[in-house]
Amino acid sequence: MAEVNGLDAYKDKTRPWFEALQARITAALEELETSAPGPFASPDAAPGRFEIKSWQRTDHAGGDGGGGRMAILKGRVFEKAGVHTSTVYGTFPPEFAAQIPGADKDPRFWASGISLIVHPVNPHVPTVHMNTRFVVTSKGWFGGGADLTPVLDRRRVQDDQDAKDFHAAMETPCRNHPNVADYVKLKQWCDDYFFLKHRNEPRGIGGIFYDYFDCPADSPKTFEETFAFTRDVGEAFLAIYPEIVRRNFKTPWTEADRDEQLVRRGRYVEFNLLYDRGTIFGLKTGGNVDSILSSMPPVVKFP
Amino acid sequence: MAEVNGLDAYKDKTRPWFEALQARITAALEELETSAPGPFASPDAAPGRFEIKSWQRTDHAGGDGGGGRMAILKGRVFEKAGVHTSTVYGTFPPEFAAQIPGADKDPRFWASGISLIVHPVNPHVPTVHMNTRFVVTSKGWFGGGADLTPVLDRRRVQDDQDAKDFHAAMETPCRNHPNVADYVKLKQWCDDYFFLKHRNEPRGIGGIFYDYFDCPADSPKTFEETFAFTRDVGEAFLAIYPEIVRRNFKTPWTEADRDEQLVRRGRYVEFNLLYDRGTIFGLKTGGNVDSILSSMPPVVKFP
Repeated sequence: MAEVNGLDAYKDKTRPWFEALQARITAALEELETSAPGPFASPDAAPGRFEIKSWQRTDHAGGDGGGGRMAILKGRVFEKAGVHTSTVYGTFPPEFAAQIPGADKDPRFWASGISLIVHPVNPHVPTVHMNTRFVVTSKGWFGGGADLTPVLDRRRVQDDQDAKDFHAAMETPCRNHPNVADYVKLKQWCDDYFFLKHRNEPRGIGGIFYDYFDCPADSPKTFEETFAFTRDVGEAFLAIYPEIVRRNFKTPWTEADRDEQLVRRGRYVEFNLLYDRGTIFGLKTGGNVDSILSSMPPVVKFP
Repeated sequence: MAEVNGLDAYKDKTRPWFEALQARITAALEELETSAPGPFASPDAAPGRFEIKSWQRTDHAGGDGGGGRMAILKGRVFEKAGVHTSTVYGTFPPEFAAQIPGADKDPRFWASGISLIVHPVNPHVPTVHMNTRFVVTSKGWFGGGADLTPVLDRRRVQDDQDAKDFHAAMETPCRNHPNVADYVKLKQWCDDYFFLKHRNEPRGIGGIFYDYFDCPADSPKTFEETFAFTRDVGEAFLAIYPEIVRRNFKTPWTEADRDEQLVRRGRYVEFNLLYDRGTIFGLKTGGNVDSILSSMPPVVKFP
């Protein structure tokens, strides 16, 4: 896409970061697969390794293109983990352009980001989601967040150590970049977003969520600060989630715990298909179905 | 709700039909649970029986009310079968009133109907869905349909005997009521509706689908004919589905067949949460979550 708005330099900086973060996160999760002591679902299970699948966005009209790099692991610690990057560009269909900042007059867009969801085997290890992205229309902005979903009712509470430490980790990037992010606001945004209205219940214990953190072409300083904050969200994830996995994956579980996990995963499915803007947007704009729905839990029960 | 449009006599006729049909269908499915020869998932499984749960629509504002009768069976032939009736009335919220025929000026509504989804144990027995309803706003109309989803790829084809016989059964009510229903049109409507756009694939092998079959207060003959057609859709279901179960439930299956079934059920989940108007409408208007989502398959895999 030809440069139209002075934001190309930002594209060149953000994309490599998302791709490097993908490599670091997949390495960290593989390390947990290797070093984890049992109990495992299968006694002779070998450490899982990520399979990488690249895809191209070629089946689209006009100058649309780009693609992505899916990394999926099915292992003994992580029943299913998807850590994906994508960089896509093109033209929004008119019905979407009207809803996107800066796209109402010129529907061209560019977007790059990383998105991950991890579904662990052990019901004591929480499910986690993290996503950060940089989007360019006639404007440019960052968005993203991370949230934790312990799948056992007795652990999906704010005074569980996992919840406390996850919140503390997500506060760090906000504290380091007070000009960019107000932690109280981002925490509330997360609670509001990851909420199943039809059940009047939160999806998990929360985290942070942000969007439309504007980076005007004429203010490189704003971009640098907002990008640094977004990088720190990735660092916060890397600092806390492996630690939460490590402290929980030795804990034995019962059949009842497994059952509770499978039912709770159903709420994840409901959220992603009924409410998640990224999922619905991706599916309705001809995104990569395998990549978008790879976030779905491997096994689910709807009792 | 006070009579406003001369359609109350229609309400008094339709509701008892839906409720009687529920009793006949649950009896037919229980009979299959009893008389079925193996193979069963558990060798010592006992015949399943429907559990009945009545619910009231009391947590709504103003004069809203009504309720329903859920019937859920978890058995040895049917892993999960839900056969539900409901009769609800009230006032559409403004954002929905605009989309509903006859509700733009007066947002009051009344609706009664039956809805069922059956998820069998044996992957050779197809999943089935049937739903018929009568809706009253300032207009009154019938809608509904029935469709079949064989869960094994090699059986989800139009030249399978189950598909042929199901289509023939659904043609019967149309042939008996040519003033009301054009089979070719209703079959196409079904194919168009039960289609997963994001995957460019049909949900099952089809059936019939219809909506807004208008019954004006000043044309009792139209009501009687359309009601007779709707009753015949129920009769067609009762004539064919137990027969399809009976001819398939002795067929042994492999682990690979079971796996294929669980993955195919994921498409059912995707359809219901992404596209099904009844599900989305129900969840967003504060419907009974247990009843609406009882259609979800008992166990699902998203590999």
